[in-house]
Amino acid sequence: MNKNERFVKKITLKSVDFSRWYVEIIQKAELADYAPVKGMMVIRPYGYAVWERIQRLVDDRIKKSGHSNAYFPLLIPESFLQKEAEHLEGFAPEVAWVTYGGKEELEERLAVRPTSEAIIGNMYAKWIKSWRDLPVLINQWANIVRWEKVTRPFLRTTEFLWQEGHTAHESFEEAQDETLMILSLYKEFVENELAIPVISGKKSEREKFAGALETFAIEAMMSDGKSLQMGTSHNLGQQFSKVFNIRFEDRNQKLQYVWQTSWGVSTRLIGALVMAHGDDSGLKFPPNIAPVQVVIVPISAGNWKENVLPLARNIEEKLGEEGLRVKLDEREEFTPGWKFSEWEMRGVPLRIEIGPRDIEKKQVVVVRRDTGKKENVAQASMNRKVPEILREIQKNMFEMALKFQQENTHEVKDYEEFKAIMESKKGFIKAFWCEDQVCEEKIKEETMATIRIILLDQDKKAARGKCVFCQKPTETVVYFGRAY
Amino acid sequence: MNKNERFVKKITLKSVDFSRWYVEIIQKAELADYAPVKGMMVIRPYGYAVWERIQRLVDDRIKKSGHSNAYFPLLIPESFLQKEAEHLEGFAPEVAWVTYGGKEELEERLAVRPTSEAIIGNMYAKWIKSWRDLPVLINQWANIVRWEKVTRPFLRTTEFLWQEGHTAHESFEEAQDETLMILSLYKEFVENELAIPVISGKKSEREKFAGALETFAIEAMMSDGKSLQMGTSHNLGQQFSKVFNIRFEDRNQKLQYVWQTSWGVSTRLIGALVMAHGDDSGLKFPPNIAPVQVVIVPISAGNWKENVLPLARNIEEKLGEEGLRVKLDEREEFTPGWKFSEWEMRGVPLRIEIGPRDIEKKQVVVVRRDTGKKENVAQASMNRKVPEILREIQKNMFEMALKFQQENTHEVKDYEEFKAIMESKKGFIKAFWCEDQVCEEKIKEETMATIRIILLDQDKKAARGKCVFCQKPTETVVYFGRAY
Repeated sequence: MNKNERFVKKITLKSVDFSRWYVEIIQKAELADYAPVKGMMVIRPYGYAVWERIQRLVDDRIKKSGHSNAYFPLLIPESFLQKEAEHLEGFAPEVAWVTYGGKEELEERLAVRPTSEAIIGNMYAKWIKSWRDLPVLINQWANIVRWEKVTRPFLRTTEFLWQEGHTAHESFEEAQDETLMILSLYKEFVENELAIPVISGKKSEREKFAGALETFAIEAMMSDGKSLQMGTSHNLGQQFSKVFNIRFEDRNQKLQYVWQTSWGVSTRLIGALVMAHGDDSGLKFPPNIAPVQVVIVPISAGNWKENVLPLARNIEEKLGEEGLRVKLDEREEFTPGWKFSEWEMRGVPLRIEIGPRDIEKKQVVVVRRDTGKKENVAQASMNRKVPEILREIQKNMFEMALKFQQENTHEVKDYEEFKAIMESKKGFIKAFWCEDQVCEEKIKEETMATIRIILLDQDKKAARGKCVFCQKPTETVVYFGRAY
Repeated sequence: MNKNERFVKKITLKSVDFSRWYVEIIQKAELADYAPVKGMMVIRPYGYAVWERIQRLVDDRIKKSGHSNAYFPLLIPESFLQKEAEHLEGFAPEVAWVTYGGKEELEERLAVRPTSEAIIGNMYAKWIKSWRDLPVLINQWANIVRWEKVTRPFLRTTEFLWQEGHTAHESFEEAQDETLMILSLYKEFVENELAIPVISGKKSEREKFAGALETFAIEAMMSDGKSLQMGTSHNLGQQFSKVFNIRFEDRNQKLQYVWQTSWGVSTRLIGALVMAHGDDSGLKFPPNIAPVQVVIVPISAGNWKENVLPLARNIEEKLGEEGLRVKLDEREEFTPGWKFSEWEMRGVPLRIEIGPRDIEKKQVVVVRRDTGKKENVAQASMNRKVPEILREIQKNMFEMALKFQQENTHEVKDYEEFKAIMESKKGFIKAFWCEDQVCEEKIKEETMATIRIILLDQDKKAARGKCVFCQKPTETVVYFGRAY
């Protein structure tokens, strides 16, 4: 296993320098590469395969809950963005502007979409006439450009991919139901498929989406203890329908403005998978999302091409028929040990080793990426056993991440304890907050911690306490954390 | 059926004004709508569902033939486009330029991608080192912007969606094999799934892609007799690898430039579906691509909600279980006749009518969109019969289109006959051509006909003839047509 060790040494260890490990592993595992335009990245086939899995699993859920996909233009007239003041203020600093079409200077600048509320609002005003046209439940898969100053692959890039849902409803209540339904759809998806536990709740005024009435979010703890926003769901109220004049005749023949929502998850989730599960050996994908679930490495000794390879191919085919994503590594130029460490680094959940001795014993050796545990499995029972182990890995990875999250979530009673924890430890601090923005700002200034979410009533044990900063009595419970 | 007639009358008849019918039916059937930016469109859910079907069916074929998807940046530095002179000349007039990021003017203008050869070439130079890295077989699904002067929904829009394959190979032959393999993949897809027969072959120098060595294409005859380019596959040779310095160490340790291909199909195919199959009653989708394959219309007389609706729901469920895309039209505000004509207009291949009398007879009435033929089908045999009829429709639609194409393909011996046909009739003219660009230009000037494809040797009956324009002896056979 000397080769193995050497191979991994090329990457900075996660335990030594988390940020450096993050950018190195992404390039080394060929998830993404830097593009020649500042802050942009190329999503390479292995990384894009993860995105395709995310797309498929999210899209199925979006469609099942009654939404359809559509596509709206990339370029948005500046005057549209200007209509909603708060929205403009939020996005103007980071808009990329198209000013020329061919050789002609445009009369009006066009924004490369930083989000699509404005252009979609304009179309909804045209399409929606009556309560019979509602609800409108549309989603879009698209690329987004935001001129960010500080970027990091997947987490914050000048261009990224996402889905953005945009719905219109008859009433506030219906819009609120939609907003919260999507929030729990996201939570269920991230926890069950990405094996990442999340906390969910409302954003504070300071952290909400520019133009929304209320923003809800799911947040997850990365393995460095920092918080990553994984998805947001906004109740837009009537802010956009009023400026874009999206009106409908209600059931009593009265003209009303529609109530809207918008919500999205993005390629940022790939960064979350890296940071929540990875270790010193590299990536660690949960089976449900892994582009390759099982890698078969034939032990290349003696005349392995005659005796081992045919059996390895046979196993590949059989597991493929079970619906598993399997790869057989037939490369001749690498040793088995090198292959082991490469596929570990690339996060494949399960490795099957097969050599001459295994053929004799009618078995294979199965090695789990999550625990490193080795196990002999009889070839005859493999088709049942391999999916079973993958399910176990999925479950175990979620439990490991949940344990980590719980161990690093602290309840504090006063601000001294708060500061001490933010200095020495990492993670979430669960505390009472008086809802005063002054306390929020002060805490941020002094500790770099922000309010990640405000717990919803349904998730809260009825209790009263005192604001962790000003000691004013309150019922509001929030999670603080340092955020990406 | 008065309501029915009135409904269809709102659309210009195809037989009266083809272009007007085209833009009206697209809006009326809610495939797409005009966006507030000139030349841009919104693809509405019904149109996008067609695109999702196309994507799924093309993507499956692309992956099966060994390609993987990836994603490259939207914005491309101007200097990259300038590297390949021919390429720049071809695209510069139609590039949308980003000049500002937030409030800062950029040092170098960025092109919103008009195609991705340049940005991908830059990355391939970084990734490819050895013959072991080849072939690189990558595809991208993306949006494209070209500042077009004259636009028409789906056919030519400032922004459109497509897939673009970009591959790199060790030799010219391997690149040529890839180029032609993709050409036949496209032909098979368009004929089998879209039910549109195509002619395929090489483009003339005049018509080829800016920067390619050779361009191959499939072309189809629309029902107004004009030709539409449906997909292209380019052998790029070493033009891009030389300017982007994409080199590999070959099997003899010698440095070589890679050989490249690129190829794509786009949302234009949705326009082709409209124009190849539609009629005076509206759209006509082939079952394999139809977002809705079967619409169930309950005959709403008497207490239909108690007796007809439950059975209709049961049929919807059963056919859904067969894997069919089924819609039950439960709306109360419309009569059955109105619904019939609406779903005809929207191109649904098969309609199932069910009323009180059908319940008594344990049957349903099935109406085909392609022929208008009505048939009673026993409820007990429906699950077998409906998929069977859909397969027949798919086959019949292709045959109808092929018959039309053949009837409108003319072989001419001299230029007088050529001109006469282009004046009076529509369609393709199959003729000999001397390969001289002068003849090609003259023909275009005088008849508006261009060379759509040059027949490949394999598709040509060995023969010699005379150029239809200059009478010079030649073996080259081409198809002329007026193109979109």
